[in-house]
Amino acid sequence: MNISVPLTVPRQKQKEYLKNYHIATRGTGKMMMFAGDQKVEHLNDDFSGPGIPKEVADPEHYFKIASQAHIGVFASQLGLIAKYGRDYPNIPYLIKVNSKTNLMTEKHQDPFSNRWFPTRSIDQFRKQSGLNIVGVGYTVYIGSSFEADMFGQASRIIYKAHQQGMLAVIWMYPRGRAIKEDQGKNNIHLLAGGAGVGLTLGADFVKINYPYNPKKRRKVAEEFKEVTTAAGRTKVICVGGSRKNPKSYLQGLYDQINISGSGGNATGRNIYQRTEKEAVRMANAISAIVLYNYSVEDAYKIFKGENELKT
Amino acid sequence: MNISVPLTVPRQKQKEYLKNYHIATRGTGKMMMFAGDQKVEHLNDDFSGPGIPKEVADPEHYFKIASQAHIGVFASQLGLIAKYGRDYPNIPYLIKVNSKTNLMTEKHQDPFSNRWFPTRSIDQFRKQSGLNIVGVGYTVYIGSSFEADMFGQASRIIYKAHQQGMLAVIWMYPRGRAIKEDQGKNNIHLLAGGAGVGLTLGADFVKINYPYNPKKRRKVAEEFKEVTTAAGRTKVICVGGSRKNPKSYLQGLYDQINISGSGGNATGRNIYQRTEKEAVRMANAISAIVLYNYSVEDAYKIFKGENELKT
Amino acid sequence: MNISVPLTVPRQKQKEYLKNYHIATRGTGKMMMFAGDQKVEHLNDDFSGPGIPKEVADPEHYFKIASQAHIGVFASQLGLIAKYGRDYPNIPYLIKVNSKTNLMTEKHQDPFSNRWFPTRSIDQFRKQSGLNIVGVGYTVYIGSSFEADMFGQASRIIYKAHQQGMLAVIWMYPRGRAIKEDQGKNNIHLLAGGAGVGLTLGADFVKINYPYNPKKRRKVAEEFKEVTTAAGRTKVICVGGSRKNPKSYLQGLYDQINISGSGGNATGRNIYQRTEKEAVRMANAISAIVLYNYSVEDAYKIFKGENELKT
Amino acid sequence: MNISVPLTVPRQKQKEYLKNYHIATRGTGKMMMFAGDQKVEHLNDDFSGPGIPKEVADPEHYFKIASQAHIGVFASQLGLIAKYGRDYPNIPYLIKVNSKTNLMTEKHQDPFSNRWFPTRSIDQFRKQSGLNIVGVGYTVYIGSSFEADMFGQASRIIYKAHQQGMLAVIWMYPRGRAIKEDQGKNNIHLLAGGAGVGLTLGADFVKINYPYNPKKRRKVAEEFKEVTTAAGRTKVICVGGSRKNPKSYLQGLYDQINISGSGGNATGRNIYQRTEKEAVRMANAISAIVLYNYSVEDAYKIFKGENELKT
Amino acid sequence: MNISVPLTVPRQKQKEYLKNYHIATRGTGKMMMFAGDQKVEHLNDDFSGPGIPKEVADPEHYFKIASQAHIGVFASQLGLIAKYGRDYPNIPYLIKVNSKTNLMTEKHQDPFSNRWFPTRSIDQFRKQSGLNIVGVGYTVYIGSSFEADMFGQASRIIYKAHQQGMLAVIWMYPRGRAIKEDQGKNNIHLLAGGAGVGLTLGADFVKINYPYNPKKRRKVAEEFKEVTTAAGRTKVICVGGSRKNPKSYLQGLYDQINISGSGGNATGRNIYQRTEKEAVRMANAISAIVLYNYSVEDAYKIFKGENELKT
Repeated sequence: MNISVPLTVPRQKQKEYLKNYHIATRGTGKMMMFAGDQKVEHLNDDFSGPGIPKEVADPEHYFKIASQAHIGVFASQLGLIAKYGRDYPNIPYLIKVNSKTNLMTEKHQDPFSNRWFPTRSIDQFRKQSGLNIVGVGYTVYIGSSFEADMFGQASRIIYKAHQQGMLAVIWMYPRGRAIKEDQGKNNIHLLAGGAGVGLTLGADFVKINYPYNPKKRRKVAEEFKEVTTAAGRTKVICVGGSRKNPKSYLQGLYDQINISGSGGNATGRNIYQRTEKEAVRMANAISAIVLYNYSVEDAYKIFKGENELKT
Repeated sequence: MNISVPLTVPRQKQKEYLKNYHIATRGTGKMMMFAGDQKVEHLNDDFSGPGIPKEVADPEHYFKIASQAHIGVFASQLGLIAKYGRDYPNIPYLIKVNSKTNLMTEKHQDPFSNRWFPTRSIDQFRKQSGLNIVGVGYTVYIGSSFEADMFGQASRIIYKAHQQGMLAVIWMYPRGRAIKEDQGKNNIHLLAGGAGVGLTLGADFVKINYPYNPKKRRKVAEEFKEVTTAAGRTKVICVGGSRKNPKSYLQGLYDQINISGSGGNATGRNIYQRTEKEAVRMANAISAIVLYNYSVEDAYKIFKGENELKT
Repeated sequence: MNISVPLTVPRQKQKEYLKNYHIATRGTGKMMMFAGDQKVEHLNDDFSGPGIPKEVADPEHYFKIASQAHIGVFASQLGLIAKYGRDYPNIPYLIKVNSKTNLMTEKHQDPFSNRWFPTRSIDQFRKQSGLNIVGVGYTVYIGSSFEADMFGQASRIIYKAHQQGMLAVIWMYPRGRAIKEDQGKNNIHLLAGGAGVGLTLGADFVKINYPYNPKKRRKVAEEFKEVTTAAGRTKVICVGGSRKNPKSYLQGLYDQINISGSGGNATGRNIYQRTEKEAVRMANAISAIVLYNYSVEDAYKIFKGENELKT
Repeated sequence: MNISVPLTVPRQKQKEYLKNYHIATRGTGKMMMFAGDQKVEHLNDDFSGPGIPKEVADPEHYFKIASQAHIGVFASQLGLIAKYGRDYPNIPYLIKVNSKTNLMTEKHQDPFSNRWFPTRSIDQFRKQSGLNIVGVGYTVYIGSSFEADMFGQASRIIYKAHQQGMLAVIWMYPRGRAIKEDQGKNNIHLLAGGAGVGLTLGADFVKINYPYNPKKRRKVAEEFKEVTTAAGRTKVICVGGSRKNPKSYLQGLYDQINISGSGGNATGRNIYQRTEKEAVRMANAISAIVLYNYSVEDAYKIFKGENELKT
Repeated sequence: MNISVPLTVPRQKQKEYLKNYHIATRGTGKMMMFAGDQKVEHLNDDFSGPGIPKEVADPEHYFKIASQAHIGVFASQLGLIAKYGRDYPNIPYLIKVNSKTNLMTEKHQDPFSNRWFPTRSIDQFRKQSGLNIVGVGYTVYIGSSFEADMFGQASRIIYKAHQQGMLAVIWMYPRGRAIKEDQGKNNIHLLAGGAGVGLTLGADFVKINYPYNPKKRRKVAEEFKEVTTAAGRTKVICVGGSRKNPKSYLQGLYDQINISGSGGNATGRNIYQRTEKEAVRMANAISAIVLYNYSVEDAYKIFKGENELKT
């Protein structure tokens, strides 16, 4: 693992930053993020409904998976982590500092995801709780009429996180009246712009939507190189999105890592909208590809329980 | 009582937090809240009008009831408590930190209930006054165009309350132009989303509207499990709403506790829109069900004065 | 005088609070406020025009009256008091902390009266100037789209004033697009709601519009009891409004005190839109009714100069 | 010179305040302000165009005039003064703390002139630079939808200036959608209202538009007494406005001082839109009238270079 | 080099300010800025597309050029510099403190470019990183409905930068609904107004759009003198804009320096939208004209590699 520590990390915090980087990437330099901020972002839509196993409804489901699977970080809100963390002290946590519900749409108002805590509270919580908190996350909606507010918050949060030796991950989404819906979600050139913004903010990782398209799989993966190139020394991790056919999802992930040059993944529903055991196996299958260079076939065997993850 | 102290409570404040939890729940783990913030929220509508006994109009009515009845906490604004608290030092108080009037509706502007005090003033008041203040309350209107402001305030208030060993209760209501009126008040899936948000904020209790429907009583109570499940380790307390037939209200409460899995109640008008004596009996009848596993019939006898509450 | 000191006044400031209360109410428990914030609120409309004596135009007119008449407090802005206070050191002052002009109406924008100073500056000014400053005043427009801002400011100002041993008076007016004009100014039930809000904010006195109606004088006074009842331990003082027939105004005041149960008055134009001598006599006539239980007839004699005020 | 020091000036700063007052008024109690904030307020419109001498375009033109003419204060922005002040250390400066461009009109948005610096920076700059900074200036647009913001800033700036022994001058203009254009600029009753607001804010001087009207010269001057009366112990200084016939301008000024009772002048374009020498003579002619009771004829001779100013 | 240090630079920081000025202008008093903030301002539009060499897409391209070419300062965001600065310690950096994307246009909302960091963080970063950071940059959109916010931020940033001995550069653009598009970009009188605003803010350099027009080359350059005159002691540097014919661009630059009286240049796309070697040669050709009085012909030879830059 060859990491260039950003200069916003002061000398006396470099060791801690490198330790956190090592934990979050399992020493591989790539981040396998288990994303768990949906109880605000999607309310209860992801946790209860047709095709979703009963046990998913229990918020502890997140923690059972995160504690058993081979993941890099589990990303969620501070309050939720404070409630269950005592029983799951070994999970590497990443605190998602802002969140909003999906109740208002662009029809009503451009999105603003407001900071929930100053970074000093995150740092205080990290020390008081003794939890293994390796970094912070923050969503920026570029193109929103609140972009200016989020730029102000994001830049300071990243700076302060680095000052404390923590990692900083930016969720970067073009959104708002100014963005045409299909352009915002699928336009690779625009996504590349967002990735570049993540870099100028100084983020360690930037979480980007990936325009999944099974019919043009390879073409999309090639074109997506524009995104990882634009991100420069900030690593791109792709959003998993809604639950997909497992093999198809693993194939997409493989392409992101091995063709597009992504630096990891950020997967939520494709992991946790399954029974506990299947979810753990899915997380491990993902890690197999992201962290340990498995083929899609071999990773898929892990998902099916026909193989064990070897790290 | 088996309480998992959230990690936002620092080690040296755990004892105080547990003491407050014990007081607020009478050692049962369930909270019987006597809700008293309506002089702002409903102005004088609840206190003067047809069918409301004369004595209800005197603000001290709240305190007379709260001091005589067997309740968990009396929730109200700091200013009001500062005026009467000297004469009612034994009531367990919960400070409602924000409030708004009902004069503006969604037609005019989405709701924003602004923080009245920083938590350090609450804590200072608690120490100076010597009152038995066990926690703080705050309303969040998810879906409002001011959601971002309220998320910022709520998350910090909960964090700070825990830092001081106090409990935190969130009033969680979907509201605003983005919410269709009937959906917002009655849609259980949406209410469950709100309960989950309360959990991610780290609230100890989350106050939720209950879709009272005498015709589908049992069905609603069963479906409401989605809400209590989504709340995880945050306990759900249901809003009492407008004054109902006493037995019918007690039945609803019984269902919430024994079928839906609620962790208490938050009752205002169903208690205080009665004469002092009847109000005290009603509060006791509620506690009988919520805290001491009474049947509806036995609790109703307490309300009628045919029975005493045994704790 | 039987005063229950609010618990927001810390122990070591109780003596000072009681002293200020005693001064402001002349030891009677009732506040005779000479209201003098109109140079912002009404610009020059009250001071120059048909039927207004010439000398009213000089801002010192306020101070000449306040220093000679028997009043409880003279309420005005800090800057004005700073200009004349050196020559009028014996007036008991109440600092009006916010003010707005009347240039914008609801047609343009809902009203927001912004805090001019933090309470610590008021307290600093009190100490530096050596003036007899007994409290602070603040206007809240409930129903305005800026209600949330004003609630935040008002609650903190009252709290801080009490922390310094000063009194806090709230000007409480329903106003804004959400309020129908006639309802806002005359609806007693709504006024009662506002009075209750003043109580929950912890105000010592709440200044309320009184629906003067000579044709239904007694009926209105009776109905207005709803307001003073809703205010509980916060005392209601009624706005004087535009200049009225002197006897008629004194009669209304008498009714407010002796029928409705008000705790004082807040009179501006009915005092100062007169020559200095007449104004002083009018102020004394008011005090006669409010503070010393005079009949309307006897008070009116004071106004006419046929009698002296005996205190 | 008989000055009543406002009580917002603490005892230990009274000497400094009086010294600054003495400098700014040349010991006469009247302020001759050379107004120089137009490079923001009017952009380059005043400095380059038909009929404007070439040398006016150089920003140093301001300083050349201010350093040679007999003025009270030169009012301009801190940044500009910081650039030239080293070469012009003897000018008495007044820092204009807020400014806005004229690009947006009421059609687009009501005016808001935002504070550029906290008063503590002004005070720090005063001490570090060693410049002769005697006070601060701030514009308030009463009637604007941002009036509340400006009231908050203005009141604190005046208070803080006094706390440091500096003078405070308010530029007071009715402006915004709520003001009808001709009313706002010419209505004397409204201007009087603004003057009174300046007094309640505690300003030492308030800068007011004067409704120049050669045809009704004397009538306007008489009516304008309403303004100076409403201002009480705050002195009114009248805006010079656009460049006028020199004698006609001097006549207007004479009327303001000798009929209306103004306490000085605030002149920009009528001074600096001339060659350096003529500008200096114009400034001296103005001072002759404002500070030294010259007749219009005698002052006009100074302007024409036929006479010297004797002070 | 004859520099008048602004008085906002305290005595003990003058040496550092002069050192930074010397570095940033290579001892010539003129600033050759390599502008590199486009990854936010233009997203990925400048870095990937028809006619843009492949290597431009790598963010390190900026740094490779800046480290090899003879430039005054490289201006970019803190986060980006923090990522690559360790490998490029010798570049003189200028931190661009605010930035916004181009996703929203005036159709949607007037532009607001929000401060990303307080100046104290810039200063802290400068000290911790040991990088050669000579100043800060900030964009002001005069005419925008957010002008007031940006004036507040800009004035304080410049003041604080000077307090720390750093330079301050303002990007000054008329923009927003109130500006007619062609007027805003090409109207020299308006541009001159902006330059004057930069001066009143106290900026050391102000970056202004130049109305390139090959057909009226000389006429424009002459007229542009209004801009440099209005800027007074603040030096004007002209925006390079989109990539132009190299010789034509150099000619324009020559005119700006030698006819219009500019104090440098700010060039981005005309440098970096080339291969590394060509970009370095272009930067050197620019410096030849700006800093060392080369003719267009001689500078163009440098661009073509037929000549070396002699400094």
